Amino acid sequence: MKSDEIMDIALRRGFIYPSSEIYGGISGFYDYGHLGTLMRRKWEDTWRKHYLSLNPNYFEVDATNIMPKNVFIGSGHLENFTDPLTECEKCHSRFRADHLVEECLERCAEGLSAEEMSGLIKESEIPCPKCGGKLLDVKMFNMMFELSVGSTGDSETAYLRPETAQGAFLNFKRSFNTLRGKLPIGLAIIGRAYRNEISPRQGFYRLREFNQAELQIFFDPDTIDEHPDFEKIKDVSLRMFPLQNRSSGEVDEVKASELHKNYGIPKFYIYHLVKIQEFYLDKMNFPKELFRFRELSEDERAFYNKIHWDVELYTESLGGYKEMGGLHYRTDYDLSGHQKASGEKLEVNIEGKKMVPHVLELSFGVDRNFWTLLDVFYTDEGDRKLISLPKEVAPFRAGVFPLQKKEELENIAKNIYERLSKWFDLFYDDSGSIGRRYRRQDEIGTPFGITVDFQTIEDNTVTIRERDSMEQKRVKVEEIWKNI
Amino acid sequence: MKSDEIMDIALRRGFIYPSSEIYGGISGFYDYGHLGTLMRRKWEDTWRKHYLSLNPNYFEVDATNIMPKNVFIGSGHLENFTDPLTECEKCHSRFRADHLVEECLERCAEGLSAEEMSGLIKESEIPCPKCGGKLLDVKMFNMMFELSVGSTGDSETAYLRPETAQGAFLNFKRSFNTLRGKLPIGLAIIGRAYRNEISPRQGFYRLREFNQAELQIFFDPDTIDEHPDFEKIKDVSLRMFPLQNRSSGEVDEVKASELHKNYGIPKFYIYHLVKIQEFYLDKMNFPKELFRFRELSEDERAFYNKIHWDVELYTESLGGYKEMGGLHYRTDYDLSGHQKASGEKLEVNIEGKKMVPHVLELSFGVDRNFWTLLDVFYTDEGDRKLISLPKEVAPFRAGVFPLQKKEELENIAKNIYERLSKWFDLFYDDSGSIGRRYRRQDEIGTPFGITVDFQTIEDNTVTIRERDSMEQKRVKVEEIWKNI
Repeated sequence: MKSDEIMDIALRRGFIYPSSEIYGGISGFYDYGHLGTLMRRKWEDTWRKHYLSLNPNYFEVDATNIMPKNVFIGSGHLENFTDPLTECEKCHSRFRADHLVEECLERCAEGLSAEEMSGLIKESEIPCPKCGGKLLDVKMFNMMFELSVGSTGDSETAYLRPETAQGAFLNFKRSFNTLRGKLPIGLAIIGRAYRNEISPRQGFYRLREFNQAELQIFFDPDTIDEHPDFEKIKDVSLRMFPLQNRSSGEVDEVKASELHKNYGIPKFYIYHLVKIQEFYLDKMNFPKELFRFRELSEDERAFYNKIHWDVELYTESLGGYKEMGGLHYRTDYDLSGHQKASGEKLEVNIEGKKMVPHVLELSFGVDRNFWTLLDVFYTDEGDRKLISLPKEVAPFRAGVFPLQKKEELENIAKNIYERLSKWFDLFYDDSGSIGRRYRRQDEIGTPFGITVDFQTIEDNTVTIRERDSMEQKRVKVEEIWKNI
Repeated sequence: MKSDEIMDIALRRGFIYPSSEIYGGISGFYDYGHLGTLMRRKWEDTWRKHYLSLNPNYFEVDATNIMPKNVFIGSGHLENFTDPLTECEKCHSRFRADHLVEECLERCAEGLSAEEMSGLIKESEIPCPKCGGKLLDVKMFNMMFELSVGSTGDSETAYLRPETAQGAFLNFKRSFNTLRGKLPIGLAIIGRAYRNEISPRQGFYRLREFNQAELQIFFDPDTIDEHPDFEKIKDVSLRMFPLQNRSSGEVDEVKASELHKNYGIPKFYIYHLVKIQEFYLDKMNFPKELFRFRELSEDERAFYNKIHWDVELYTESLGGYKEMGGLHYRTDYDLSGHQKASGEKLEVNIEGKKMVPHVLELSFGVDRNFWTLLDVFYTDEGDRKLISLPKEVAPFRAGVFPLQKKEELENIAKNIYERLSKWFDLFYDDSGSIGRRYRRQDEIGTPFGITVDFQTIEDNTVTIRERDSMEQKRVKVEEIWKNI
């Protein structure tokens, strides 16, 4: 199984660990080891650079993980952020009703109400998967983690945020006034979110504590059909998987301009589809056959999302195309909701025109993107395993190796390591044969190996070995930085 | 009041905002605005670079914020991480008993037991500060946020971590085996921690959700009196505030070598004192008169901290010297505690020698360091306000200004902005007089202003203005990057 292979490397080499493992842990929680932390940070840096450079008025902000109850009344989470739950009458185990329906009846359960699921479970007599007992009526279970702030006497109910987005909505007005008072304005948050999943499955894909990278773009809805740079991107071919292709499974390649002309998708939305695809194909180097935008049906998408295409990557270890993120046209749902619930005016006044801005949300799950990078770029070549990670996200840019444990070689190697460490993350390794050291770095995705040998002492050159081709070339010590 | 001045700029310009402000917020929670997010990230990057470069075996890891109950049985937090609480018999308001004792009786309350505080409150008849009613006996209140993971039937009690440190202890064994199997090994975590403070005061200094940067160094206790680089730092003068100086308030300048010889502080500990002072004085540019290491008495320090000096900075807006971090020799308290509670062997075997490593902890509060940077570097010169932040942590490295709103100037300015944005965070501003634009950047700490004027069109030079001296010089466009 590929998922086992990836998990084996991830654990053995230090990408991820089960959280609180020595205590048995809790399912749905993972830590990042030293390699994983480096790699995730690089992914986040690349994400930040890519998306925040789209407009000088896009910035990152950071909000608290804990927010008071009223926020989630305003956002609708308290009422709607629920999963259907069924309990066994006999053993009292609890299960996701939609998962049971999907597995036992082999049908899609998205969009079904609690009553409909109760009905299906009764009709088909789906038994408790643990003990075979009878399952009770389906109830909706809120997936937010609740906690109490303050001491018992004067405590206040609060929740861990189930998505980073709310922080951007809550800070919109302040940010708008503090910055230029112009639209569009973009507020990104990269950080934790928490969902009390009833039975988290699928290893690293559905976590209870996870990382998101989201960009909320607030814009004037009257301008949704324009973008100043649309001309520049109009000929880009996008990989679209619209609803009508569900049965064929085919992906259409559609030019940005056609998407506008033939399908009526607004230009402001299309521009961001293009930039998302660019991130995956050009920055992350994913083979384009593995990438697609998937249109969601009305049942599948949240009612406030007027346009919603998911970003999907084919991830073998997860069994097929998997959601990595989404582009959501949320209208004024969020700001109007918070305006109503808080009583605080969130409309803006641009040159005499008053409006509540609309929101285009770019939302990505960091952990699943991380996992899919490992999945897609991993190869077992028999005599070596390698992860051909793009160099921007590989934990280390290069390994630095003295060919032998001799002081004269080690001094040069350490010197190279120290000087270049200011610019790159490097790993110094002097143990084992040089072949083994190359293999160890291949397995964790390090693109280059820098070897100091006896020729180095003579002519101040080193060997640089490239991971994927295994080609080696000799380069002057002063020019290593240009070659890695 | 200086604290009001700083808070005013911080709110008005976008450094920090009260969290969930439109809903009234909860005290002890702050968000970071677009400037604050840039600045905090830069502080964290500088921290990471400085401390992780101390040894090629020091790495960053990342652990979950939610951890199961057993972790905090093992760490001792469930039993000991408490604050003394007293309640008013009449109005049921709750207060920190130690704060009441300190304020009403003008004495230090650290180290007092619940019984002792109850006694003092009774004896002195300290009344309820709200209604004047009688205060009840002092009880210990656990400061961790509790939550429940899983659905009601099979839920598990968990807590938000009150410090990042536990994640490093829990992952020690995995990391040790995954890395080189050598000591010392350092595991840093930069991330959130949560404490349910009973009545958070002091604005941004004591938060309920806050950010820490901690480095746990695991080492062989037999080597505590050596460090391979001690020779290099032995002549550094350290600013020490030992217990015996409490009454005089004087800071001693003591050479690293003397600290070892005369005071018996082990070399491994001294080396890290030196590196911490270097971070504050050389990387953060704090005037040395504002910096000191403060020795804690046995009452003040945790019982497992065998050596404990706090890092303090004089912060006017907070009323004096304030704790920014600490260097804690925690012995084997953490690993032995987790070993006992989890039943998992955490000892290591180095060339036949078995041991539970000891821990030296470098612990810093990110938010308070952030606040103190604003405090110390803020000046009101009358006709301008400025924050002389070191350029490594200033939110923007430079402002880019076309002198007038003319297309020919704007095109050049935008071009400079776009090219240099790959390397630096910049702010493009074309509104208002050039003098006002300089002032706006001074106020948020931007070290340089780059102005495109009519001479630029002729000879391809721009003006670079330096924030603190306000000196201007003309520089070729291609050489801007060398001058900022």
